Amino acid sequence: MTELRSCSTIRVRYAETDQMGVAYHGDYFAWFEVGRTDLLRQLGYTYRELEARDVRLPIIETHVQFLRPARYDDLLEVRTRLAEATGVRLTFEYDLVRTGEAEALARATTSHAAIDAGGRPRRLPDDLRRRLQ
Amino acid sequence: MTELRSCSTIRVRYAETDQMGVAYHGDYFAWFEVGRTDLLRQLGYTYRELEARDVRLPIIETHVQFLRPARYDDLLEVRTRLAEATGVRLTFEYDLVRTGEAEALARATTSHAAIDAGGRPRRLPDDLRRRLQ
Amino acid sequence: MTELRSCSTIRVRYAETDQMGVAYHGDYFAWFEVGRTDLLRQLGYTYRELEARDVRLPIIETHVQFLRPARYDDLLEVRTRLAEATGVRLTFEYDLVRTGEAEALARATTSHAAIDAGGRPRRLPDDLRRRLQ
Amino acid sequence: MTELRSCSTIRVRYAETDQMGVAYHGDYFAWFEVGRTDLLRQLGYTYRELEARDVRLPIIETHVQFLRPARYDDLLEVRTRLAEATGVRLTFEYDLVRTGEAEALARATTSHAAIDAGGRPRRLPDDLRRRLQ
Repeated sequence: MTELRSCSTIRVRYAETDQMGVAYHGDYFAWFEVGRTDLLRQLGYTYRELEARDVRLPIIETHVQFLRPARYDDLLEVRTRLAEATGVRLTFEYDLVRTGEAEALARATTSHAAIDAGGRPRRLPDDLRRRLQ
Repeated sequence: MTELRSCSTIRVRYAETDQMGVAYHGDYFAWFEVGRTDLLRQLGYTYRELEARDVRLPIIETHVQFLRPARYDDLLEVRTRLAEATGVRLTFEYDLVRTGEAEALARATTSHAAIDAGGRPRRLPDDLRRRLQ
Repeated sequence: MTELRSCSTIRVRYAETDQMGVAYHGDYFAWFEVGRTDLLRQLGYTYRELEARDVRLPIIETHVQFLRPARYDDLLEVRTRLAEATGVRLTFEYDLVRTGEAEALARATTSHAAIDAGGRPRRLPDDLRRRLQ
Repeated sequence: MTELRSCSTIRVRYAETDQMGVAYHGDYFAWFEVGRTDLLRQLGYTYRELEARDVRLPIIETHVQFLRPARYDDLLEVRTRLAEATGVRLTFEYDLVRTGEAEALARATTSHAAIDAGGRPRRLPDDLRRRLQ
């Protein structure tokens, strides 16, 4: 069985800081995106190819706890786990951790619906669904 | 009693779209920021002045439901409500609505802790607390 | 003759600041985008409609001088001028000014090529070209 | 003599795309920032440490030619070169190249002034100046 976890490394950019001297919370979502993209890539799927197969996975819900700030130039790990996969919906969980530390800086979930290019709900391709079991 | 609600108008920028042809979810958080900033402004407080008084209000938690996509050049209203105010924590609720429509595109909450410039918890200034009752 | 100038108002968001305590330079480009979009709107064109007519105007060149920093919550004016219009290319000039001040914070130009959805060069629609004379 | 060139790898994020299906031009500046940060790091300097030594390097001018679009999930190389270093100013040049290709997607320069935390011009530290010769 495939391990449905992945670990992505991110370095905090200056562009992502704000004048509080920490990473702006809205920018975390691009990091979580990197996390779930890498998890899919590890399973042999790129999100680019999924789009070419008329699958889009827009976010429908998110919940984030910001526990401690991330700072400029920090090396961070986005540890992503597939929490739930149905034929039409995927939920990912994320722990954001500064490299070498134990405690998470943030914990998050994002849920995504499968739709086609026209915005209509669709089922995930069978081959992908099998990989996600 | 002060009405602890505000309404801010946002026009979706091209920079905020993604290749799905909708606004990227991470960019909604800057809109919610505009919402709560305007609510404070309406009470006579700018966040800039609060910072000068050594108050910062970093986000500690958020929950968002993305119901329908926002699109390029859409005029949106961020309807913000103060949901909870204690001496050390504020929670805001947001409805994101396309101007002229009834149904929300997104619903969100953000919670914020009051800290000082050194990152230590602090109480909100008394005058602000009174306005938030 | 139409005045090919426009003035757009922007308030600097916290999301747009960095830990130097000023607006991050990369975020200025979204403001310039607001400027040229408003100029086109003033002429009776929305960029959304242009896209529906199979016109896209990607940037091909930019030059910016950053003279003085923009800060959080500043009210800024993007003063946009159409500097050059040919059948296949538009160039805009921008002065970014803090409201109530005389000296610009930044001066910029952006040049844009007209292409179709497939990325091929195309001529601007005749009606738009006439408005831009 | 140190080779004053560096090469940084970037993968284009979905957050960085726009509805034209390409990377938004304003997001390139965060990539150039990664480029010059890596060049300094290669010389033994982190920008974080420079800030701790009261050196800031805000951008004062930029010029960019956008030659061909960058797309979602592309692996890009930011090839950075120190073009000029005086006691008070640094200029970097960048070639943005899709990995495995020869032709650049974009070419850019950014110039930066050395200032202190109060925004006053200052000279670069001697040790850094020597490394930049």
